[in-house]
Amino acid sequence: MCSSDLAAMRLADHEARARLESHDHGILCTVHAGRGVDAVPVAYAADEDGYLGVPVDRVKPKASLRLQRERNLEADPRAALLVEHWDRDDWSQLWWVRAELRWHGGTAPERAAALAARLAGRYPQYQDQPFARVLVLHIAGLTGWAVGGR
Amino acid sequence: MCSSDLAAMRLADHEARARLESHDHGILCTVHAGRGVDAVPVAYAADEDGYLGVPVDRVKPKASLRLQRERNLEADPRAALLVEHWDRDDWSQLWWVRAELRWHGGTAPERAAALAARLAGRYPQYQDQPFARVLVLHIAGLTGWAVGGR
Repeated sequence: MCSSDLAAMRLADHEARARLESHDHGILCTVHAGRGVDAVPVAYAADEDGYLGVPVDRVKPKASLRLQRERNLEADPRAALLVEHWDRDDWSQLWWVRAELRWHGGTAPERAAALAARLAGRYPQYQDQPFARVLVLHIAGLTGWAVGGR
Repeated sequence: MCSSDLAAMRLADHEARARLESHDHGILCTVHAGRGVDAVPVAYAADEDGYLGVPVDRVKPKASLRLQRERNLEADPRAALLVEHWDRDDWSQLWWVRAELRWHGGTAPERAAALAARLAGRYPQYQDQPFARVLVLHIAGLTGWAVGGR
C-alpha cells in the first residue's frame, strides 16, 4: 500500500444509519446564543422512524432540573449529534457520522417511552439508575464519512 | 461502592487545561447558518498563550480548498472544541473538557508556524503527509467536567 494522502469517502445512507444506530455514544451539539455552540457527550438511542432519544440524567436535588442543552433547544431547535471512531495509530480506520437534528417540544409520550425502553436496553447503567426523562429529536439529515488511503 | 447516581464535578482550570493539552483529538463545532451547528473530529495542538491550532488536511485537487468549517468561521468566528474520555463499562471514568473558541483571520504567521510544528510533533502521521495549513483559534474559555459516583 502506497498512500500519499488520506481521502474521506462519503458513506452510503444505509451505512451511515447503521453506524449511528450501533455506536455507543455521541456528541450532542446545540446552538448557544452567547457562545455560538455547545457540545456535550451523550448516550442516545435511535428508532426506525428517524427519531433520536437522549436521556436527561437525574441531577442533584439542588441543581437546576433544566439542563443548558434544554434551554438551548427551546431557544433554537437545531442540533447535531456526531458519532465517531478514532484510532490514534491508523487513520485509515477513522469514520464519523453526523445527524442533523430538530427538537420538538410536543413529542408523543408513546415515542418518548419507546425510546426510553431502547436506552435502557442499550445501556446497562440505566437499569440501576434510571434517567429522569428523554429528549426526543427528529433526524433531519444524516452525513457519514470514512477515511481511507487512496 | 454503592452509588445510586452519577454526579458531574467541575474540573479545576489547570486540570482542564492539562487534559486539553494532552488529549489526542477533539470535536470541532462551528456555527452553520442553515443547520445551526456543524461538528467534525479534528487533530489539534494548544500552546501556552491560549491558542489552538487545527490542521487543514490536504484535499484532492478537484475538491474545494476551502472547507465548510472555514466558511462557517468566516461567517461567525465562534466555535468550540470538545475533548472527552468515554468508557463504555465504567461511567465513573468519564470526563470531558470544552474549549470556547474564537477565530481571527489575521493570525501572526509565527504563531501558525509554531502551532504547525507542535502538530507535527504530536501526530506522527503529519511527518509523512503534511497538512496544507493551520486554522488558529483563540481559547476564550475552558470548562471541564468529570463524572464520579457520589
